[in-house]
Amino acid sequence: MTTTPLTDLSRCCIHTITTKPWTFREAAENYARAGIPGITVWRDALDGISPKEAKTILDDHGLEVVSYCRGGFFPHVSNADRQAAIDENRRTLEEASALGSPLLVLVCGAVPGQPLTLSREQIRDGIEAVLPQAEACQVGLAIEPIHPMYADVRSAINTLSQANDLAESLDSPWVGVAVDVYHLWWDPDLQREIQRCGKNGKLSAFHVNDWKTPTEDLLLDRGLMGEGCIDIREIRSWVEKAGFNGFIEVEIFSNRYWEMDQPDFLEQIVNSYYKHV
Amino acid sequence: MTTTPLTDLSRCCIHTITTKPWTFREAAENYARAGIPGITVWRDALDGISPKEAKTILDDHGLEVVSYCRGGFFPHVSNADRQAAIDENRRTLEEASALGSPLLVLVCGAVPGQPLTLSREQIRDGIEAVLPQAEACQVGLAIEPIHPMYADVRSAINTLSQANDLAESLDSPWVGVAVDVYHLWWDPDLQREIQRCGKNGKLSAFHVNDWKTPTEDLLLDRGLMGEGCIDIREIRSWVEKAGFNGFIEVEIFSNRYWEMDQPDFLEQIVNSYYKHV
Repeated sequence: MTTTPLTDLSRCCIHTITTKPWTFREAAENYARAGIPGITVWRDALDGISPKEAKTILDDHGLEVVSYCRGGFFPHVSNADRQAAIDENRRTLEEASALGSPLLVLVCGAVPGQPLTLSREQIRDGIEAVLPQAEACQVGLAIEPIHPMYADVRSAINTLSQANDLAESLDSPWVGVAVDVYHLWWDPDLQREIQRCGKNGKLSAFHVNDWKTPTEDLLLDRGLMGEGCIDIREIRSWVEKAGFNGFIEVEIFSNRYWEMDQPDFLEQIVNSYYKHV
Repeated sequence: MTTTPLTDLSRCCIHTITTKPWTFREAAENYARAGIPGITVWRDALDGISPKEAKTILDDHGLEVVSYCRGGFFPHVSNADRQAAIDENRRTLEEASALGSPLLVLVCGAVPGQPLTLSREQIRDGIEAVLPQAEACQVGLAIEPIHPMYADVRSAINTLSQANDLAESLDSPWVGVAVDVYHLWWDPDLQREIQRCGKNGKLSAFHVNDWKTPTEDLLLDRGLMGEGCIDIREIRSWVEKAGFNGFIEVEIFSNRYWEMDQPDFLEQIVNSYYKHV
C-alpha cells in the first residue's frame, strides 16, 4: 500500500509560514542553503517587498515558487464585502503572477452563523468571478478543503469530496484542489477522492505536517511529520498513484516551532521529510 | 425549512456533565425543580452511588433517564486491552439497565497512530461482542459520530454516514445512532444522513449545544445554544421530519460554564432551549 522513502530533496518545498520568525530573505537563503528547491510564499511574508523584487530574490537563490498563499474568503454578508473579496483575489492573482507562482491556494471562507449552503454558493460565485483573471495571469486556483473544525470562519469546504464537486462543476483547467494531510487525514473517503481528483487532472498541491495528540491549540499546534498520528507516507502513495509527482509542501503552523532556533528546526524538517514523508 | 419554537420543556433533557460542579443529587434536585423531565447520566457523575440507588433518587424526583454515558472505546493495540474494553462495556450495560436507562451512548474510540480502518474494524467487532448483553439488558446502543478533530483518540467514526453504515451493517434493533449538533453541524450530507437513519428507525438520540467562534479549547469550550454558529432549529426540523420525537439532550462541556453559578446557568439553559432549539 505505502511507498518507498524519498531519497533526495528534489520535491521538497517549504511554506514560509513554517519558519515564520524568518524574514522573506532569511527564509530564501536558509532554504537554498539546505538544498530545498521549492518555496511556497505566504502573502504576509513579503512584508513590504514587492512580488517582482521577491521573484528576483528567489531567482538569485535558485528557488522555485510552488504556490502563493492565500486567496479565497469569498463569503460575506453584504454584496459590497463580497465584491471587495473578489477584487482582493484579483490583486492576489496579479501578485502571484508577478512572483512567478503557478498556483494560488484558496481558503474559501465562511461567515459564522451564515448557512454553510449559502457560503458555498458565494464561494462558487467568487471563484467564477476571478477565473478570467486566473487565466489572464496564467495562475491556477487550488481549492483547499479545510478541517471541519474551521467551518465557522475559515471555510465551508471541509472535505475533498466537496472540493472535487466544486472543482468539477467549475470545469476550468485553471481550477484544481489542494490536499493537506492535516485537514483530511480522518476522512474515510480520502483515498477514493484523491483518486478522483488525480484522474480528473485536478490534484494541484500536496501539503504535509502532522496531527499531534493532544492538539493543544486549534490553529497553531500542528506537528512536524512523524510527530503525530497521520500515516503521511500512505497518503503520499495515494497521491502519487493518482498521478501527482509535484512538490511536497511542508506547512506547519506552530507556536512551539516558531519559538525554536529556526536553523535547528529546518534541520528537523529535513530529517522528518526523509523519515516520514 | 425550519420548525416552530418549543413551547414547553416536555422534551428537555440535561446531561449531567453540563452542570458538572453539581453532585448527582444536586443535579437531580435542580433539574426537577426547573421542570426538566429528562436526565442523561454521565457514568462518572454517580461517584460512588450505585446505579440502583441513583434510580431511586431519579424516581423520587420524577426524572426520566434518557441515556447513560458512555460506553465504547473499543480499539486497542493488544487483544487483552480490547477484551477488557468489551468486558467494561458489558458492565456499563448492566449499570445502564439498573439505572433504568433505555440507551447507552457509544464514543467508539481510536488509537493514535493505529490506522483508522483497523480501529473501525475493532469498533465493529466490539459492538458485535456486546450486542447479546445489550439485548439481555434491554438497553440500546447509540453510535455517536464524533467530530473529526477527535479522530486521533476519541473516535474513528466521525460522520453520520459512517455511523449509519455501521449501524445498518450490524442489523440489530439494539443498535442506533446519536446525532449531536456539535459533532455534525458542518457535514454537507447531514440532512440526507438524518433522513436515512430516521427512515431506518435508527435515530436514537439528539444532542444540542453550540459551536463558538472562536472556540478556544478543543474539548471544554462548547457553547450554549444560540451562542454559536449552528442552526440548531433547522437540524431539529430535519430530525423531527425523520420521525424523531424523543428527548432533546443539552450536553455542554465548558470550563467557562462550570465556573458559573450553576442555578444561574440552568436558567440560561432553559431560556436558550426555548429561544434557539
